[in-house]
Amino acid sequence: MPSHLDADELFYVMSGEGTISILYQENRETYEIRQGDIMMIPAGSIIYQVNKHQTERLRIAMLLCPVSMPGHFVEFMQAGGQNPETFWNSFSDEILEAAFNAPKESFERVFQRQRKGEIFRASDEQIKALSKSSKGKLGKPFNILNKRPSFSNNHGQLFQVTSDDYAQLKEGDIDVSIVNITRGSMMAPKYNSRATKIAIVVQGCCDFEMACPHVSRESGEEEERGREWEREEESEREWRRERGREREHGSERGEHGSQRIETEGHTYSPVRSRVCRGDVFIIPAAHPVVAVASRDNDLQIVCFGIKAENNMQVFLAGKNNVLKQMEKEAKELAFNTPATEVDRLLNAQPESVFFAGPGEARHGHGQGHASE
Amino acid sequence: MPSHLDADELFYVMSGEGTISILYQENRETYEIRQGDIMMIPAGSIIYQVNKHQTERLRIAMLLCPVSMPGHFVEFMQAGGQNPETFWNSFSDEILEAAFNAPKESFERVFQRQRKGEIFRASDEQIKALSKSSKGKLGKPFNILNKRPSFSNNHGQLFQVTSDDYAQLKEGDIDVSIVNITRGSMMAPKYNSRATKIAIVVQGCCDFEMACPHVSRESGEEEERGREWEREEESEREWRRERGREREHGSERGEHGSQRIETEGHTYSPVRSRVCRGDVFIIPAAHPVVAVASRDNDLQIVCFGIKAENNMQVFLAGKNNVLKQMEKEAKELAFNTPATEVDRLLNAQPESVFFAGPGEARHGHGQGHASE
Amino acid sequence: MPSHLDADELFYVMSGEGTISILYQENRETYEIRQGDIMMIPAGSIIYQVNKHQTERLRIAMLLCPVSMPGHFVEFMQAGGQNPETFWNSFSDEILEAAFNAPKESFERVFQRQRKGEIFRASDEQIKALSKSSKGKLGKPFNILNKRPSFSNNHGQLFQVTSDDYAQLKEGDIDVSIVNITRGSMMAPKYNSRATKIAIVVQGCCDFEMACPHVSRESGEEEERGREWEREEESEREWRRERGREREHGSERGEHGSQRIETEGHTYSPVRSRVCRGDVFIIPAAHPVVAVASRDNDLQIVCFGIKAENNMQVFLAGKNNVLKQMEKEAKELAFNTPATEVDRLLNAQPESVFFAGPGEARHGHGQGHASE
Repeated sequence: MPSHLDADELFYVMSGEGTISILYQENRETYEIRQGDIMMIPAGSIIYQVNKHQTERLRIAMLLCPVSMPGHFVEFMQAGGQNPETFWNSFSDEILEAAFNAPKESFERVFQRQRKGEIFRASDEQIKALSKSSKGKLGKPFNILNKRPSFSNNHGQLFQVTSDDYAQLKEGDIDVSIVNITRGSMMAPKYNSRATKIAIVVQGCCDFEMACPHVSRESGEEEERGREWEREEESEREWRRERGREREHGSERGEHGSQRIETEGHTYSPVRSRVCRGDVFIIPAAHPVVAVASRDNDLQIVCFGIKAENNMQVFLAGKNNVLKQMEKEAKELAFNTPATEVDRLLNAQPESVFFAGPGEARHGHGQGHASE
Repeated sequence: MPSHLDADELFYVMSGEGTISILYQENRETYEIRQGDIMMIPAGSIIYQVNKHQTERLRIAMLLCPVSMPGHFVEFMQAGGQNPETFWNSFSDEILEAAFNAPKESFERVFQRQRKGEIFRASDEQIKALSKSSKGKLGKPFNILNKRPSFSNNHGQLFQVTSDDYAQLKEGDIDVSIVNITRGSMMAPKYNSRATKIAIVVQGCCDFEMACPHVSRESGEEEERGREWEREEESEREWRRERGREREHGSERGEHGSQRIETEGHTYSPVRSRVCRGDVFIIPAAHPVVAVASRDNDLQIVCFGIKAENNMQVFLAGKNNVLKQMEKEAKELAFNTPATEVDRLLNAQPESVFFAGPGEARHGHGQGHASE
Repeated sequence: MPSHLDADELFYVMSGEGTISILYQENRETYEIRQGDIMMIPAGSIIYQVNKHQTERLRIAMLLCPVSMPGHFVEFMQAGGQNPETFWNSFSDEILEAAFNAPKESFERVFQRQRKGEIFRASDEQIKALSKSSKGKLGKPFNILNKRPSFSNNHGQLFQVTSDDYAQLKEGDIDVSIVNITRGSMMAPKYNSRATKIAIVVQGCCDFEMACPHVSRESGEEEERGREWEREEESEREWRRERGREREHGSERGEHGSQRIETEGHTYSPVRSRVCRGDVFIIPAAHPVVAVASRDNDLQIVCFGIKAENNMQVFLAGKNNVLKQMEKEAKELAFNTPATEVDRLLNAQPESVFFAGPGEARHGHGQGHASE
């Protein structure tokens, strides 16, 4: 059913194949789409899609970025009966007659006869006719799975697409990544320095763990929570929402201990969940996370990254563990442990990014330790 | 009265003529202004205006874009008694004495003697003296009515100014348009792909209709509405407010009908209103609208477009109706009607953008149909 | 203690000297820091700092610009016991064992042995080792006090750093300024045209006065305030929060007085406060302010400016008083006072930016008047 949204749409084809037609700037553009394709469609474009495959579902994940009201979008259906209804029902008969220069009955026969819902069956000939691609200004989809993975080993693969690959991602400050994790394997503990990730499980299941200071603070008393909200409302009154605070660093170095400053008391509550095909979850910036694929199936996750520019992935274990960069003295001070012991731990994991998962790693243990 | 705002100001001169003086960057700039002029004045500039005409009112529409608190602006008056009050009243006498290096009485004689309100009568000599233009960095106003209309026929005219014409619109991502509709005529059903329009009726009256899914959903039960708000608050916690959702497209093509997916049930409530001179209304992005000028007067509307960059106007009836771009098969499927009947309807209106209005169009009807 | 934030951090060293180490993009960068230095650190960088001085405190003011939730930031500590706790406590033992390829005990010995809090004493050798600077992509801090002041006289000095001096300020649209006011002197009444300033008193005390229309309006009845909030919530639903309003200017110039329009009635409440070392206060855009240093101590304030691009400081008294730019006739009309009297007042203060304060200015008075 042709329709348009008040939102920019970034889609990822999770499985299947078909075509998408887009009425944009007084032209029609039609593109083939298949598993792995991403494409950005500007708000207000009228689109319709066809599943070309005889048996397979066409599964599409969409990120909608509303252009009008934050957090809300609306869809406008061209044709329809009651469900979906066409937006044309909103207009007076006499205005529609004047606009189309035709009697009411002609109008109704076209715009109000569709009774099959939003999605309906087409004949093979119709599908064939609708599958002729015709290019235009939007440009064809980008296939993320055809790109060389940015990281790959026996335990998993990471594919990433930024605005360098697909320029249409630039304006929305978005990136897209695909994570494949072999059954039973895991992704290294890591965090994103500035991007928030919206993750959708394409196939398989995983155990997901995250450290989250918000939860612990807010799950306190209800009263405190009310105050939280008030503060938030107040702070939203300030346009750019920045905050200054002052931190005093210890002084008079002889006095040992007496300058310890009472902080808010950082406590992190574990966020743990099993997520499976079709589940969506959010990974906020800076929050350390780990994902372990279930032993039954390989795992695939697609992530839309928001505020993607200048984002870094920071790995906290494995060969490229960022903590290895600390000076010997900093390690000793920070961890209150001899640097050799710190180094032994940081060097025990020989892999990067994707590791053997819990249970599978027993063998590696001995190796890891032995190799030092 | 000289004053400044914590908002960027874009103004449009609806009628009359005069001058505007702007104290900006330690200089004074004075420009003549007349009907059709637009001008952007940066926040914090101290401005005052003069009506030069003997009999005509100087009517100015302003779009204020607050730089500090979203949705709020404040004005600071230099001089005044009680209404308006000058902001100088806020300061201690001893501080004012030190700042101006003068006794309190001298200060009061200057800043607190004005008792005539915000607008007051000037002599012909004063007006003449205040009318000497002196250019500066801001540059003179741009007259939108001197530009060639982007569309014009017997039924109406459309004037548009973007940052290509007047570069100062670029930073605020704004455009300005003037719509003239001949009495009794109408503008085609259309929507803006991404801009929100703030419309002000300059003269005449019009019947305005809009399709709006928000109204129908939110006018439901109060409880549902409460939940709406909660969701909104939650979503505002996420910095960029995007939303992912997954849509599954029909599969197993033999099963005809069984894959119909229950959607939220799109229902659109008509928004209908008669708006007249001085009325302001908002047209959100993607919402189809129609406007019909009353039979008594020609209609003029000024529209400030917010998020104007890359906005397209999409016409849904008339010669440039975007639906004409659909393939024959897509028309048949979408409308569940033979393509010839769809085409007959889409081709019946021979005009673009502005049409004969309801009642006036009878004659055209026959023609439209006969011409096929 | 090494930790990272979900916020960009701009810091200013108020006093002392030390080093800062930053783990950024798989490298470590270490820089010396001392009084007057500013530096921007991207969100997600792991940082730790050392106070190198034997006796002096290292005092640092930070502006945190959250990248995730507006108005909120969170900190993630690498190591710790209970206060602070390390975020590593959030993860399951078996996942940590697999990630680090090491038994639980090894992990605990490194990440959970630190019991000294966030700040702890280091030996002279450790400090020496941690003080070796190693440059990288972030670039070294910029010392604002080494720059030539943008204004200086006997009564005070103004130092300003923009993105022209330190490019890292560009993306956040921030500037930094230092105001030194001699004991007993004052800064001229002035406002910022578009920036909001977050001010922190580094040393001394000052009497601060501001004209603020918000306060007067909102300190009305509670009911009105509730309505305010509702309006604000509504307006936040519109993405860009602009507002149009129409103002009619007087006409029929003969009718004198009859066109006075009832405005909201501008009333400004004085905001007056004594602020001292460690106090933080906000100066919204366009709000006129005055600051007088106490007679006991020289005053130093650091200001972080938000939305700094194209900001102007507009001075309302002194040699560069912007009102001097008004035409003779405009002065007479606006102030309802002979222009000579207006000029006498505006010219009485011979200094710019920083003046003698209340009490100290007596002598100048006579001079100011006599010189005309």
